Amino acid sequence: MSASLAERARSGDRRALARLLTEVENRTTAGEQALRALYPLAGRAHLVGVTGAPGSGKSTLVAALTGKARAAGRAVAVIAIDPSSPITGGAILGDRVRMQIHATDSDVFIRSMASRGHAGGLAASTVAAAAVMDAAGFGLIFIETVGTGQSEVEVAAIADTTVVVQAPDMGDEVQAIKAGLLEVADIVVVNKSDRPGADRAAAQLRAMLTVGAHSDRAAGDRPRPKRPEVLLASALTGAGMPELLGALDRREAVRRAAGADGGDAALKRAEAQISGILAQRVAAQLREPARAAQRATTLAAVAAHEIDPFSAADRLLELLRADRAED
Amino acid sequence: MSASLAERARSGDRRALARLLTEVENRTTAGEQALRALYPLAGRAHLVGVTGAPGSGKSTLVAALTGKARAAGRAVAVIAIDPSSPITGGAILGDRVRMQIHATDSDVFIRSMASRGHAGGLAASTVAAAAVMDAAGFGLIFIETVGTGQSEVEVAAIADTTVVVQAPDMGDEVQAIKAGLLEVADIVVVNKSDRPGADRAAAQLRAMLTVGAHSDRAAGDRPRPKRPEVLLASALTGAGMPELLGALDRREAVRRAAGADGGDAALKRAEAQISGILAQRVAAQLREPARAAQRATTLAAVAAHEIDPFSAADRLLELLRADRAED
Repeated sequence: MSASLAERARSGDRRALARLLTEVENRTTAGEQALRALYPLAGRAHLVGVTGAPGSGKSTLVAALTGKARAAGRAVAVIAIDPSSPITGGAILGDRVRMQIHATDSDVFIRSMASRGHAGGLAASTVAAAAVMDAAGFGLIFIETVGTGQSEVEVAAIADTTVVVQAPDMGDEVQAIKAGLLEVADIVVVNKSDRPGADRAAAQLRAMLTVGAHSDRAAGDRPRPKRPEVLLASALTGAGMPELLGALDRREAVRRAAGADGGDAALKRAEAQISGILAQRVAAQLREPARAAQRATTLAAVAAHEIDPFSAADRLLELLRADRAED
Repeated sequence: MSASLAERARSGDRRALARLLTEVENRTTAGEQALRALYPLAGRAHLVGVTGAPGSGKSTLVAALTGKARAAGRAVAVIAIDPSSPITGGAILGDRVRMQIHATDSDVFIRSMASRGHAGGLAASTVAAAAVMDAAGFGLIFIETVGTGQSEVEVAAIADTTVVVQAPDMGDEVQAIKAGLLEVADIVVVNKSDRPGADRAAAQLRAMLTVGAHSDRAAGDRPRPKRPEVLLASALTGAGMPELLGALDRREAVRRAAGADGGDAALKRAEAQISGILAQRVAAQLREPARAAQRATTLAAVAAHEIDPFSAADRLLELLRADRAED
């Protein structure tokens, strides 16, 4: 059944694709089988991360870029990573108002994913979903993260190209969040360029990035951050959109020309996937009936401060090891 | 040397405590030894998570609460989890302006931690830092997260009591982030109660939480969210601060009376610690000289879409298993 679900997703059945993504996201056996089958067919899409502080206008920008790409006949998928609902556990911003103009277009596929509750981590789930969309023929995949936390930055880091969006008029705390995001940026978009202060914001940003490039040399052994392009755009008026899409395509062309291995982002994606699966396998083994009781006892002993967590972890590793040696 | 560092931290030497926290955060051998020694002495502090969307006024609130607790003679520690600097990799908001009034008070200890780059995860690092502060005699520990992402919510979940802060006047996206945070809230503070709309915001919030409690029953097997208290406060004028500190102390008293095992949060802390250490141990084993080459080959094969990540993970687990059986 699942093989045919993968087949149908590949042949353009969007409902089959949606169901398949649910299987993959829930890490079911059917989802794992389908992903194994589809994985060799992926690797052709350009994965573009779009991230930024709340209020920067990421969603509007992604909708506008999608419109531009569709006008050129390209199939576009969007993975929107949203804060989780306290009620259903699902994604909250699911039906994004800005994307509704694309709702009847079968060559635009939008998937909302909740930010929480991913066995093996959010980055691993995102990579898996993107691989399925890639195998289903979407050549341009936007990964939009509304949040500003550690996982969201990691998600940005697994994209081939990462766009950090900022609005001209934001507070100190948001500025600091933005600074944290610059490390992963290939392109910084000063959005809402129709507003006062946009040109000044872009100039400040370019100055800040220059300082960053210099200071880093002094900081020693840390990798020098790449120097991102700074572009002005207005998702509302459409200003700067062709330039942004052009910049994305140029980066993709350079990346493709550089070789078939997919580059750093592909290695990061592989690492996120594999470490996610390893963590899940180890956790599942510890929850098996033969070990569950000892796992629970060990957790309770750490919670009561009777043993330290390092000794506890070593004890659980021994438990896995002993069983393995017996197999 | 490290044992004496732990001893000095315990006896009130704040510089020793700061150095020890660096060792623990960097997961050095000395840090691990010290944490093993100090862990049995922890378990007495009340860990209070304070989180909320950017601009909600969390830092000001923590500073005001710290002032109240200090006036009652209590020792207070703050772990402030900040966006990471793109230049140094360190925490950005380090010297928080609001906390500077406490800078000369040795019974207030403030530690900024970068949100990124924690081997084994941010939650595990936070739990470890809190255990050290706890063993050093701080009875009230605030864990403040500026971010709004998955990891930040997980950090909130490892606190004994979690306070979600919101300001009355915030946009849609921030509202959605807030909704995602309500799941972990024990107390919701509508901050900036001096501003217009605060009473209405509190009323809306209470109504929303009532709907949530009902809908969840229909949603089936998910655990019903606890119904948080909603309080109005103004960190600026001090209004509502005694009530908030009182509410925290009442919750702690109830938790203590309920038993010595530390409750759900202590189990979550144990789990975060142990799974962080397990992930770190597995990753370290795969990076050992005997396995590093095969690990790199496997990653590259997944990056090039030659094998799928599940087969790759199973191959790496076999690699660990074979070596273990031989030991």
